[in-house]
Formats: sequence, C-alpha cells, structure tokens
Amino acid sequence: MTSDEMRQPWKVPEPTLRRLPWYLAFVKLLKGKGEAFVSSTQIAKEINVDPSQVAKDLSFVNVAGKTRVGYEIQALVDVLEDFLGFTAQHKAFLFGVGSLGASLLHDTGLRQYGLRIVAGFDVRTDLVGSVINGIPVFHMDDFPAKQKEFGATIGVITVPVEKAQEVTELIISEGIQALWNFTPFRIRVPEHIVVQNTSIYAHLAVMFNRLNAMNHSQI
Amino acid sequence: MTSDEMRQPWKVPEPTLRRLPWYLAFVKLLKGKGEAFVSSTQIAKEINVDPSQVAKDLSFVNVAGKTRVGYEIQALVDVLEDFLGFTAQHKAFLFGVGSLGASLLHDTGLRQYGLRIVAGFDVRTDLVGSVINGIPVFHMDDFPAKQKEFGATIGVITVPVEKAQEVTELIISEGIQALWNFTPFRIRVPEHIVVQNTSIYAHLAVMFNRLNAMNHSQI
Repeated sequence: MTSDEMRQPWKVPEPTLRRLPWYLAFVKLLKGKGEAFVSSTQIAKEINVDPSQVAKDLSFVNVAGKTRVGYEIQALVDVLEDFLGFTAQHKAFLFGVGSLGASLLHDTGLRQYGLRIVAGFDVRTDLVGSVINGIPVFHMDDFPAKQKEFGATIGVITVPVEKAQEVTELIISEGIQALWNFTPFRIRVPEHIVVQNTSIYAHLAVMFNRLNAMNHSQI
Repeated sequence: MTSDEMRQPWKVPEPTLRRLPWYLAFVKLLKGKGEAFVSSTQIAKEINVDPSQVAKDLSFVNVAGKTRVGYEIQALVDVLEDFLGFTAQHKAFLFGVGSLGASLLHDTGLRQYGLRIVAGFDVRTDLVGSVINGIPVFHMDDFPAKQKEFGATIGVITVPVEKAQEVTELIISEGIQALWNFTPFRIRVPEHIVVQNTSIYAHLAVMFNRLNAMNHSQI
C-alpha cells in the first residue's frame, strides 16, 4: 500500500471501519480518566485484537504515534471522530414510523454520531402530523416535496417487509444516496447506492442459538 | 457432515444464522401473497445468495423440499421461526434506560422475535419507578432481588461506555447467561457466557465512509 492510498478514506476495509469505533470508545474512556497517551498495545489488549491489527487500522487515520509514549489521546479522539463521520451532520429521512422507527426517532444518540434525522414518513393518518422527539412526521405522499426542501442524503428504512423494496425504489428516484436498512428484507439497489443492513433480529437469532448450544453442552 | 450433526441446532455457523432470517422474511412475504411453494433457486435469486448456499443453510433446519415444487411455504415459516428461537419467550433485563435503552423498551418488535424484556434497570432517580411501554424500571441496587424473582437469562446492555464492564460483571455474577451488548465497548466475559455485539454506530461509520467514497468517485 502506498502512502497515498493510506490517506484515501474511501479505501478503508469494512472490518477496519467496524473496529475503529471500539478503539474510539476505549480511548474516550481513558480521556475521561485523565490519561494523556495510549499505545496500540494497550488498545489491542483492551479490545482483544492483535496489536499489529490495531496499528494497521490506525494507519488509515491521519494520526501519528510517538515511540514509547504512543498516541496523544485528545488528538486520537478528534481525528477518529472526524474520520468516522461522527462530527459531520448527515441529513436523513426515516421511512416507517412504526415501533422500531419511532424508537429510532427517540434515540438522541444517533445525532451525536453524525446522523440527523430531520423528518419521518408514514401512511398512517394517526401518525402524520405528529412530532416525535422534535422530529415531524409527514405523509409518504409529501416525500418528494420534502426532499426538495431538505435534500436528505440518507434514508432509514423501518417500513414493514412487504413495503421495503417499493419504498427503496421511490426514495432512490428522489435522490437519496444511502440506505440504512433495518428490515430483515434484502433490498435491491443500483450499484451507485450505498446500503447498510442492520438486522437486529438476526443478531437475536445468533444469540438464542448460542444460548441454546451452551445449555445443551452443560447437560 | 453426518445427518446427526445436521440436526444439532448448536452447530450452526453464524453466517447461516444471519442469512436464515432473510429467507424467513422473504418466505413470509410469499405466504402473504398466497403462494404455497418456494424453491431454493427462487430464494437465492431474491436474496442474492448462491442457490447451493441456500440449500446448505436450509439443510441445518429440519425441513425437506420436494423435487420440482420445492419447500412448502407454511411449513418453512413455522420451522424457521421455531429454529431461530423467535417462537420461544426469552426473558431479558435491560440495563441502562437512557436514550437507546428506552428506545428498545418501546420496540414491540423484539417481543415478536422471541425477546421478552421484563424489566429495565438504571440509577437515575427520575427513571426508577417509571413504566415504559408496560415495562417497569427498577434501581440497579434491586437487580439481585429482581433476578431471583424473574430469573432472566439475557441481559441487554445499553449503559454508558464507562459502566459497560462493571455492569457486565455484576449481572453475570447473578446468573445472566447471554449479553446483548449495544455499547461500542468490547466487554470481556468468561468463556461460558454468550455475547452478541450490536454496535449500530459502527454501522453508521461504514455507511458514512461509503457515501463519502461514492461522492469522491463521482467528482
């Protein structure tokens, strides 16, 4: 890898992008305890990842460690938060204000991590016109007009499974560039559209299975 | 693999367990449309997975396809829901009734997928004694007594990062067997404890990075 490639944030492998927030969480913790420096060995030990992997992951980020003392914690926190996109404000619309959708509107943590949901959309008349945690809920029919007004780049998909593909196609046609799909449905999108699947129920299936396995192996 | 191994639900690889809920969602969709049979080729095409992979994944589940017509949809839905643990009721406690924690208490979808959160715990006096979506919130100090009363097997961790390890150790000591960790902190647990990490903010980081990459490549 050339040093030029290393500085391109769009060449970062997904496993690295998933580990960096763990490092950030740990380093922020140290910061809270008043620490000033951290080594990649320390991070590696805490996160249970190989030290060379930590060093490699951090090589994508524009931060230099010093021999013996390691990384300056304040600088590492700033650079990681910026690198991961948590300091920017990415405008998002949420589609489907059901149980999970409304829950996400309530989660103020998302805003701290750079996702600003500016409106929700639904077809249920009892939801349209309501305001959840300061976020207005509009009718799906108003989406094209609202998109012209807000210019959101991200769509959070929390509609029922049978509506997932239809809503996906509609919102892409109006200029949404990235989809955060919480449904267990595998939506199909054109190549230039970004999709991140977060199927929390699939995580439950894994947990139940492992729990079951553990109880069987103890009998 | 022998046929005996195939029927042990505790030998299922994690990627299979993560794909099966996709198949289930699609097959339920077909059921809603009044279809009676589905082939692994159909599932493969819809989910964008290799047909041989679908057949292999479904071989872990106790369901037989018929030549030419494929799997009976109703049977496949029943068997998959049962196999994935969605029809059982797994008793859970939630720790940390902050923004994300309260959101999860609101999500009735979890119960439909087999997770029954029976109580929340926090240290904030304004939260203790409240009831969210029918679920009571108790003080952390009351956890050992409540655990004796409810006998929960699963702990949902939504505490602040700096409390994650401390809470983990406390609840394991009182008999919690599986942890669903929503914090970006990598909790350490004894070998016999099940951990499922769901770091939704890490998913955001991946999405932001890919969005950024896409916009750069278009310039």
